[in-house]
Amino acid sequence: MKILIVGATGTIGKLVTAALAERHEIVKAGSKSGDVQVDIKDACSIRELFERVGKVDAVMCTAGKVHFGAFAELSEAEIGIGLKDKLMGQVNMVLIGRDYVNDGGSFTLTSGVLSHDPIRFGVGASLVNGAIDSFVRAAAIEMPRGIRINSISPGLLEESLPSYGPYFLGHEAVPGKRAANAYVKSVEGLLTGQVIHVL
Amino acid sequence: MKILIVGATGTIGKLVTAALAERHEIVKAGSKSGDVQVDIKDACSIRELFERVGKVDAVMCTAGKVHFGAFAELSEAEIGIGLKDKLMGQVNMVLIGRDYVNDGGSFTLTSGVLSHDPIRFGVGASLVNGAIDSFVRAAAIEMPRGIRINSISPGLLEESLPSYGPYFLGHEAVPGKRAANAYVKSVEGLLTGQVIHVL
Repeated sequence: MKILIVGATGTIGKLVTAALAERHEIVKAGSKSGDVQVDIKDACSIRELFERVGKVDAVMCTAGKVHFGAFAELSEAEIGIGLKDKLMGQVNMVLIGRDYVNDGGSFTLTSGVLSHDPIRFGVGASLVNGAIDSFVRAAAIEMPRGIRINSISPGLLEESLPSYGPYFLGHEAVPGKRAANAYVKSVEGLLTGQVIHVL
Repeated sequence: MKILIVGATGTIGKLVTAALAERHEIVKAGSKSGDVQVDIKDACSIRELFERVGKVDAVMCTAGKVHFGAFAELSEAEIGIGLKDKLMGQVNMVLIGRDYVNDGGSFTLTSGVLSHDPIRFGVGASLVNGAIDSFVRAAAIEMPRGIRINSISPGLLEESLPSYGPYFLGHEAVPGKRAANAYVKSVEGLLTGQVIHVL
């Protein structure tokens, strides 16, 4: 398969790439690094990405920013950061990318545990993750040409403990390799419309 | 209690108002009708609403538009309709309204069954409903001064069969009175961070 991975040089993206590269052709996309660059906040940039990469069998998104901050001061604009980036960035990868995915191909998006297991400072992330999971469930049943779509909902990764650990005290950290395995399951298996939890 | 109901003259809003009006002071808000007008798409309009209504014990939102349409032609702008209206309209009612809600008060938002039980043409609605439910779970744990927040997630209402029935074929319709009861439970009870399903 030819697999486009957006966020391929990130924490999860690297592990997913390593897990898939033996058997498949991987096109690595990133905001600054990788084989091709894309700004997922910008639909034009996503369109250019697909024009450049051409037809693929699978699209994976392991990228997306959200704002973390105290609910007491949380603003509409701060919630908007996640809506524009992690949510609509990934949704646009699907809306634009569906014309470039071969019959029977797949999309795999990234949400996260905060959709249903919230933390302090995490309102913006929770909202976005819940939206992604429900988008995937709904898009799956209308997806044309046997194309599948799933989301991976990982808990805090062990690899992210230095940066996010203090936000997730008491959360059981997940080895990144287990998260990467869920992406492999989504792309190599036949599941669709599923939220694959990695806890 | 003094209860502000946005969407008070809509299908659910009328039933909720009827169920609460005996015991409480109801301020009915609507886009065109009611005691006060508000455009929930516009944060300034929400701010004006609260300036006019003043302190309240509970805020309920039974309003919010989303776009229904085939996924094959679904655009970023069409998804944006629901993001701006049903999602951020309700989220802004909370972000702005929290300063006007008395200690121990509550917010009750409206999501819907499509978050997890999707239908054809419903991708935009599913995404928004999932976001609302996750927002509520997360906002609840950071809410100040004992303020509670829940969402009501109703299935198709019997009262909406003439307009939405053809989209929901095979779905068991719910009497509006049962949905109204869930709003009463949210405002009169002590639940918080819950998605109250009405099926």
